[in-house]
Formats: sequence, structure tokens, C-alpha cells
Amino acid sequence: MNNAMDRLIKKIKETNNPTVMGLDPRYDMIPESIREKYSKDVEGACKAILEFNKGLIDSVCDIIPAVKPQIAFYEMFGVEGIKVFNETCKYAREKEMIVIADIKRGDIGSTAAGYSNAYLGKTALGDEKISIYDVDFVTVNPYLGIDGVKPFIDDCKEYGKGIFVLVKTSNKSSGELQDLKLEDGRTIYEKVAELVSSWGDELVGEYGYSSVGAVVGATYPIQIKELREIMPKTFFLIPGYGAQRRKSRRYSIRIQRRYRRNSKCIKKLNGSI
Amino acid sequence: MNNAMDRLIKKIKETNNPTVMGLDPRYDMIPESIREKYSKDVEGACKAILEFNKGLIDSVCDIIPAVKPQIAFYEMFGVEGIKVFNETCKYAREKEMIVIADIKRGDIGSTAAGYSNAYLGKTALGDEKISIYDVDFVTVNPYLGIDGVKPFIDDCKEYGKGIFVLVKTSNKSSGELQDLKLEDGRTIYEKVAELVSSWGDELVGEYGYSSVGAVVGATYPIQIKELREIMPKTFFLIPGYGAQRRKSRRYSIRIQRRYRRNSKCIKKLNGSI
Repeated sequence: MNNAMDRLIKKIKETNNPTVMGLDPRYDMIPESIREKYSKDVEGACKAILEFNKGLIDSVCDIIPAVKPQIAFYEMFGVEGIKVFNETCKYAREKEMIVIADIKRGDIGSTAAGYSNAYLGKTALGDEKISIYDVDFVTVNPYLGIDGVKPFIDDCKEYGKGIFVLVKTSNKSSGELQDLKLEDGRTIYEKVAELVSSWGDELVGEYGYSSVGAVVGATYPIQIKELREIMPKTFFLIPGYGAQRRKSRRYSIRIQRRYRRNSKCIKKLNGSI
Repeated sequence: MNNAMDRLIKKIKETNNPTVMGLDPRYDMIPESIREKYSKDVEGACKAILEFNKGLIDSVCDIIPAVKPQIAFYEMFGVEGIKVFNETCKYAREKEMIVIADIKRGDIGSTAAGYSNAYLGKTALGDEKISIYDVDFVTVNPYLGIDGVKPFIDDCKEYGKGIFVLVKTSNKSSGELQDLKLEDGRTIYEKVAELVSSWGDELVGEYGYSSVGAVVGATYPIQIKELREIMPKTFFLIPGYGAQRRKSRRYSIRIQRRYRRNSKCIKKLNGSI
């Protein structure tokens, strides 16, 4: 199945579950039973994070369709952290989960191509093309316009990958720019929504949704409704459902039980659901 | 001198040169005399890039005040690339150049803090705080509003660092979003300029400029003039002066001569000036 959104939707149907597990590891929230196995330096912290991530993935891979590692929480540990990011993505894909790398990259054309090659496509090296991270989706920032998004779309077409473009983010100050009204009465996020919808036209899959999706915060439910009308063929990635308060208690408890059964150690999940 | 913009301006005055050397390495444009020393895989490519970067830095460190490595061109080589990014930044700082990491990150608060800790501040690990990359400046994307920028500003204050926030980017499609008119008649980039100016209020240094700077493309000279009026205390990082056509032939030739003298091999510079 070469359309990434089709793959994601199929997986959601199979698990009957539309949630994605965030993998935003905080070393100080990882159970002591894992941390005590490793040294207290960057290398040890990264090993603890990887074990924790793998435990979470093992526990939920048959009931949750996708994971979303937030790369900042790996990048903050430098090279060792990036290794763990890569290992986590690989492990989740081995367990047949869909991987959405939350990288929110955005840059001018040639630079955006560099990012896109790293995560969705392949990096050219002489006559060879080398796969670097190989995830299913990445998140993309639209501030630079189509130049910064097109390289990702090209790789989506060539490699059967997908992107989620930031439209209305879940944070408190998202309105500072995104909610400003344009001279035609629309908000900036509505205009971005219109652009995202058009950028995805050529990538609509069998289920009727494009591999160019949108990030729309669950913290803004009224806007979600409006945006659905502007973007009828756009799949929404909706952060803010878990750690940012709108938690589903049912799933949270179910996952905690699973994890306890496997590792018998967890007290608190720090992957946001 | 604990204000980053003061350090940059002092360096510009010392060298009597307001240019920054981009370090956006393209493996296929690195001289064969360097490439042939190493294997033709990712590891070898990264070693060639590092040698090339060091050669460039050696050649210009007394005539150019700052370097701007674009992280996408390192990230595209995965973990090995990130090592070279780090080594390049370290080497440039050893040679007393100012390092502007062109990362264009932007995310919600806690995530932005992760990025900021990695590049400007320190990553907490138990009771310890560890320095990961330690550059002077990073570039930041404003689409998420102040939440996504504040963690960087906090680290600027604590660690004497600086940021350049994207206002009007140099690429062709930058106007797709940035030039749209708001209901009050201003453009989006003018509104962003106003925000950036206010975000920088507390970080104005001895020379009268804030450590919160702005990215304004040289490809849009009329807008630069307008933006100077909106942001009188904001230092501008102006891409598009070199590789994106507005090249200064004088500096380009001077640097090529220097590099030839040192390495006797270069044919074409791929660091954009």
C-alpha cells in the first residue's frame, strides 16, 4: 500500500483506535527500576530512554496504530539522543506501528529537501541513495510557503510517505499569529488550511484522504469543526488530547495496565496519548 | 561580554566585515582532492565535509566574523552528520568566530525548551546540567507565537546567547503567507516584526541592539527598509546575499584566494557568503 495515509487509516481500522502515542521522553520521569540499570550520564540516560520506549511500544503495538516521537526530546541529548530517536523509530516500525516523526521542520527549498531526504526520502551520495531515518510521516511548518513544503511532497509521492502541516497548533499562544484576521475576513490558520488542502490534491488515497495532513490542536475544538469544512480531504493530527489535558482516561488506564503486566515497574506514563 | 549581539557586533567591527559564511556542505561539490582521502560511504562523506569546513574556517577566521552552519545539510547524514555539525561549531568557536546555528526550530513551550537547552542552554540530567552544542545564536520560527520563542529568550538571558527569528524569508514563495495583508492593512511579516521587536526589549546590549534579531531576506530589499523602521533595535540576519544571487564578488574572490593558499585545491566554494 503505497499511500501513507491509506496505511495509517488501515491501521486505525484494524486496531479500532484513532490515537497516537507520543514518545516525548523525560529522563526524570522514567521509572527508577530502569534508570538504576545505567550510568547517570548522557549515554546512560539515552539507554534508559530507549529501554523505556521499547517497553511502551511492546505494550501497545497491538492496540495503538501509531507513535509520534518528538525529536526535540532526543536532540536535547545530542548525538546519543539522535541514535535513540533512530532506534525508537526503527523498533516501532518493526512492530508494524506507523511512525510520525514530530520534527516541525521548515526551510527554503534546497534546505527543506535536505530534511525531507533525511526523514522521508533518501540522501544522495555520489550515484547512491541512502536511507537515513525512514519514518512514515513528519510534521512540517508552513511559514515559508510552498517552497519549504514541496520537497517533502515530492518525497511523499516517490516513497509513499506523508506529512502533517501545522495549521492551528495546540499551545496557548498559537493565536498570537495564527488567529489574526486577514483583510478578507479569514484568519491566518484558515488561509493556511486552504493552502494545505490544495498542496495535498495529488496525494488522495483510497480512503479519500490525502497524505498531506494537518496539525490541528484538540485544545481548539471549535476551530477543528471550521477547518474540517475547509479541508474535507485532509486527515487531522490532533495534539492536546493527552498530556495537554484532554486525556482519555479509558485508554490511559488500559495502557498503564498493559505496561505494568509487561514490565511490572511503571508508575506514570510520560508518553502523551 | 555577556550579550550575544554585543559579541557579534564587536567581532564585525574588529574584522570590519558584516558578512557571515554559510556552511551548507554539499558532498558532491567538495574538491576531489579532499573526497579521495576518505571512503565513499556516509562516514567518509562526513569526514570529507569536516575537513572542508575546517579548511574554510582556517582560511577566513580573521576576516569574517561569523559562520552559519545550516543543520539540514548535516542532519541529512544522520548521526554521523550531527557529529560533524557539532565538530564544525566547536572548531569555529575555537577560532573565535561567532556561530549562528541555522536550525529554524519552533514548537510548543516544553518542546521549544528542549531545543533551546540543546543549542543555547544546558540539558538537565538529575541535578546536573550538561552543555550539548553550545553555539552563540540559533534561528527560530515564529508560527507558534511567544510560547515557542520564550524558552529560547530565557536561555539567551541566562547564558548570554541570541536568536534570529524568521520575519521575511529569502525564498520565492515567502510571500505566500508572509505577505498577506491583515485587516488593519499591515502584512503578516510586519506583524511578526512588531512581535520580534517587543520580544527583544529586555535584551538590548551596549551597542543598542537586542540579542533577539530578525531574519530578513536580501532578496526583498524594499521590505528591509520598511522593517528597519518597525524594528529599530533589531539586528538583521540577511540571507540571500551569496548563494541566492546577491553575491559580493569582492569577498568571494578574496576567500577563494585565501583558501587556495592554504589548501591548494579548491575550485569552488560551496559555503554561501
